[in-house]
Amino acid sequence: MQRIIVDMDEVIADTTLGMRNWYRKNFGGEIDFDKMLAGQSLVKGFPEEHQAIVRQQLFEPGFFRGLPVIEDSVDVLKEMNKRYDVYIVSAAIEFPNSLKDKYEWLMENYPFFKWQQLVLSGDKKMISGDFMIDDHARHLEHFKGKPYLFTAPHNLNEKRFDRIDSWKQAGEIFLN
Amino acid sequence: MQRIIVDMDEVIADTTLGMRNWYRKNFGGEIDFDKMLAGQSLVKGFPEEHQAIVRQQLFEPGFFRGLPVIEDSVDVLKEMNKRYDVYIVSAAIEFPNSLKDKYEWLMENYPFFKWQQLVLSGDKKMISGDFMIDDHARHLEHFKGKPYLFTAPHNLNEKRFDRIDSWKQAGEIFLN
Repeated sequence: MQRIIVDMDEVIADTTLGMRNWYRKNFGGEIDFDKMLAGQSLVKGFPEEHQAIVRQQLFEPGFFRGLPVIEDSVDVLKEMNKRYDVYIVSAAIEFPNSLKDKYEWLMENYPFFKWQQLVLSGDKKMISGDFMIDDHARHLEHFKGKPYLFTAPHNLNEKRFDRIDSWKQAGEIFLN
Repeated sequence: MQRIIVDMDEVIADTTLGMRNWYRKNFGGEIDFDKMLAGQSLVKGFPEEHQAIVRQQLFEPGFFRGLPVIEDSVDVLKEMNKRYDVYIVSAAIEFPNSLKDKYEWLMENYPFFKWQQLVLSGDKKMISGDFMIDDHARHLEHFKGKPYLFTAPHNLNEKRFDRIDSWKQAGEIFLN
């Protein structure tokens, strides 16, 4: 079976939406998607005076546990999981309180995955496979298989990789 | 730089000694190393009636946080870290409460490592590198680089791999 490496944040977990919802609730403000794009980072989309507290959210227990899933990712990955060796690989070690949250989130929302299929790493240079789907060019750059950039608000200007814009499109690529 | 994949439990963390100390304190008994060897597992070295509670310890928060380091691993890895890309890769996802403990344990005991160098995985089939040092044959079997079996009480009968018996010996192999 071919091996597919799938990222978590902004690929199957809607981190942007989770952060937007948290920010709305606490500060009543909105993301500036142009600034997010210019800064190539989720955090840069928030007003400068709140960027530290927004970043702090990533370190809080519970933040990743409640993230919404990205549309169609459950249905498409359920099928892909029958035909490929799928691994969910998240560069999460920087956020030690996210580790157990990410495990529980994956097991709850994608119950067809086994714990053997999750990897929580620092970087992804040692990860090998046939395909990688990730929203960060820095992870795709080192990958020896076929890389796909999963479209996210922060990466719209990245030109070096073939893109996947949605899980519907991923299904067309991997399930046809 | 060549990449070395180093396991955590029984290779740099003395899980056997940690469990023996816990068992002594709570039950006043000793490990049977012959049974551990026959069962090829740490847990099998304890009396049958206590194996469930010994295994339960692996799921408890704090157990991995307090493990002793294996002799010479700090000094030798500090030098290896200057000459190789070292990654510490632990198949830990099965034990969700160990994840943050393992991160904190590594950062405290091996302060020359950065968080980028830790990987907490389910299995290790997607991990690539030039060398792997692990106490479990099941991880070495899939590895495409050069595998080394790190000697542990449970693996003395395994014959398929070159062995490393101590971190002194690892230093002789990798630092000369």
